[in-house]
Amino acid sequence: MMKKIAGGVTFARGFRAADCAAGIKYRNRTDMAMIACDVPCAAAGVFTTNVVKAAPVRWDMDVVRKKGKAQAVVVNAGIANAATGAEGLRLCRETAEAAGRLLGIAPELVLVGSTGVIGPVIPLDRISDGIAQMVPKLSATPEAGTAASRAIMTTDTVNKEFAVEFELPAADGAGNVTVRLGGMSKGSGMIHPNMSTMLGYVTTDCAIAPALLDKALRTVAADTFNMISVDGDTSTNDTLLVLSSGLAGNAEITEENESYLIFRDALESVCRDLAIRMAGDGEGATRLMEMQVIHADTKENARLLARSVVASSLVKAMVYGKDANCGRILCAMGYAGPFFDPDRVDLFLQGKSETLCFCRDGRVLPFDEEKALAIMSEDAIRFLADMKMGDQEATAWGCDLTYDYVKINGDYRS
Amino acid sequence: MMKKIAGGVTFARGFRAADCAAGIKYRNRTDMAMIACDVPCAAAGVFTTNVVKAAPVRWDMDVVRKKGKAQAVVVNAGIANAATGAEGLRLCRETAEAAGRLLGIAPELVLVGSTGVIGPVIPLDRISDGIAQMVPKLSATPEAGTAASRAIMTTDTVNKEFAVEFELPAADGAGNVTVRLGGMSKGSGMIHPNMSTMLGYVTTDCAIAPALLDKALRTVAADTFNMISVDGDTSTNDTLLVLSSGLAGNAEITEENESYLIFRDALESVCRDLAIRMAGDGEGATRLMEMQVIHADTKENARLLARSVVASSLVKAMVYGKDANCGRILCAMGYAGPFFDPDRVDLFLQGKSETLCFCRDGRVLPFDEEKALAIMSEDAIRFLADMKMGDQEATAWGCDLTYDYVKINGDYRS
Repeated sequence: MMKKIAGGVTFARGFRAADCAAGIKYRNRTDMAMIACDVPCAAAGVFTTNVVKAAPVRWDMDVVRKKGKAQAVVVNAGIANAATGAEGLRLCRETAEAAGRLLGIAPELVLVGSTGVIGPVIPLDRISDGIAQMVPKLSATPEAGTAASRAIMTTDTVNKEFAVEFELPAADGAGNVTVRLGGMSKGSGMIHPNMSTMLGYVTTDCAIAPALLDKALRTVAADTFNMISVDGDTSTNDTLLVLSSGLAGNAEITEENESYLIFRDALESVCRDLAIRMAGDGEGATRLMEMQVIHADTKENARLLARSVVASSLVKAMVYGKDANCGRILCAMGYAGPFFDPDRVDLFLQGKSETLCFCRDGRVLPFDEEKALAIMSEDAIRFLADMKMGDQEATAWGCDLTYDYVKINGDYRS
Repeated sequence: MMKKIAGGVTFARGFRAADCAAGIKYRNRTDMAMIACDVPCAAAGVFTTNVVKAAPVRWDMDVVRKKGKAQAVVVNAGIANAATGAEGLRLCRETAEAAGRLLGIAPELVLVGSTGVIGPVIPLDRISDGIAQMVPKLSATPEAGTAASRAIMTTDTVNKEFAVEFELPAADGAGNVTVRLGGMSKGSGMIHPNMSTMLGYVTTDCAIAPALLDKALRTVAADTFNMISVDGDTSTNDTLLVLSSGLAGNAEITEENESYLIFRDALESVCRDLAIRMAGDGEGATRLMEMQVIHADTKENARLLARSVVASSLVKAMVYGKDANCGRILCAMGYAGPFFDPDRVDLFLQGKSETLCFCRDGRVLPFDEEKALAIMSEDAIRFLADMKMGDQEATAWGCDLTYDYVKINGDYRS
């Protein structure tokens, strides 16, 4: 049985976190976070598919792919360290060296992450000062994890963290042990499928072989972080990392057995929760939008159709306006890429207490406008499309498009 | 020498137009237009790539592809006749029959077009009444063409028409004759590459073989109508049609000779002008944005890179805010699809009187903020990216993302 916990990156055994105000861009708030583990961890990551990759993404890809091991993460908000050339990469190395020195670990075990404005170079002294502030206050308390999740926010309005615990067979064969897994993420703008949207960090004490950790992460990311969209812009910095300390005492997972599936479910649960919170907290958003596609011919087509709808500016604007102009959903599926028979599609608007069918066999139906307005006024808007083609399904999450999105992004740098 | 003319669909010999207020959706304004030619025309068209194609798109594809001939076009604004099933297709046929009867031509020579809300069915009696109003007042005057271009507007703020004339060798071999070509278009929302954005109608009196008319239209559409984006939504109704009456008296163009190239240039000139006006008149837009990509490796990659930038919500919001947050341009090229070396790209902001380089070899440079603000405050914003890979180039056009876009689309149906 998986149990949900009010926790984050410090929930799993071995992990500590810290935050500080390093003055990188913001005044009067924290803007750096650190996660460190007592032992070297198996590490896996998925990264932005953008051709223009920020320096920290290049650094992390190198660490994760070459070694599959890491022991600490240093993250800053405010400046993305993207489009900064060789100087940006040098800064990553110097950051890892500074953290490694104070933590007593090799720099190659230090992952780095940045989010914020593209272009400027982060002053090294601020980063070094920040690291020096954080190392002494690293703590395994839930509060330290929460503080870290706050420090990496940019235009986010709320911090995002989530944790679960579950049982796996003990290493010594004597019954079960409790395994912990928790994470934090940030992301509000420049969010779109095709990568691990913005920054996400997951820690666990589950003992699992690096190759299976990597496989579980890729599988899970495809249906969680990669199924949300705020604005269709795939960032230069997107990073989702998972570190496992192996300190839970479970029998190490070395094959795709039942334990692997339990672990993967737990990872999916945390990633889905973090992803949905990012979608709902999209820049300027007032409401979460969910688009479920059922009976598609292939899994990938189900994903493409669902993502196209949550990414559509017209659908997003209509959710903001509570206007059930449902032809736009059909239209957005139509340009998603996959072929389907438009004359077979059924579309539904799913409220908390009732469901409205507003399109049957590709034909938009007259519907009760008052009922539609009532459902469109709920906190989360849920659409469902029945493609009547096969047995595959997928769900995507997004948010509405509002005046505030325009405002935030018309003047982001100031 | 090509000469620009203040004209539209009635400029070419043989074409007449009319408008009327049919009360399809709007009150107190015209909402139907008709173009008719004195003789049957060669006809070519490009249509939306959306899987969900509106009934009039299906009708027109059938007419153009089966016969390559047409003699009249009937267009309505207010309701798109999309997602209307068999009833929508029946309406197209009945529209063509009603127009054909009054014009004394076969229904298979009548093209139809619709733009507006997806879902509702247009009442046939309003369409029939509108046709009965328009046929008697068909006129070859410029005013009739302008009135037609006004009647097909939806959220457009200005009507769009443009014409040119040029010389081609006469059919009788005695020197040159003047050939005319003019067009009108509408489109403001649901506008995105991959089709002939929204509705565009071009008429010409040039004598040209149908196959070459089709080829010229496809070539031209790829660099004009398909290079604009307002909101990334590819409509269900996009249609670009060209009709040639052949009444100019030129020697019929039957091969890709110099006359063909002159004709194609004229067609491109009209289509480019109409496309740019659509981009600049995007829903809620305050300014036109132009993105030119030079020295790309292939033409298609140049197009993809340029379109990705004008379609980016973040770039669009930054143009609205006059904020030269130029890393977003690099980011939008990065997720466009084509591979390139981010460390070689130069980016420029081109003002009327000076050009600012804000990224050199993939590295964002410090720049004069005041100068940038001055350029970003001009009526049209022009960006240029030098990929340093080859000799291909492309230009895309878009507009800024504003509060008004959200407002218009949050409540479009009312």
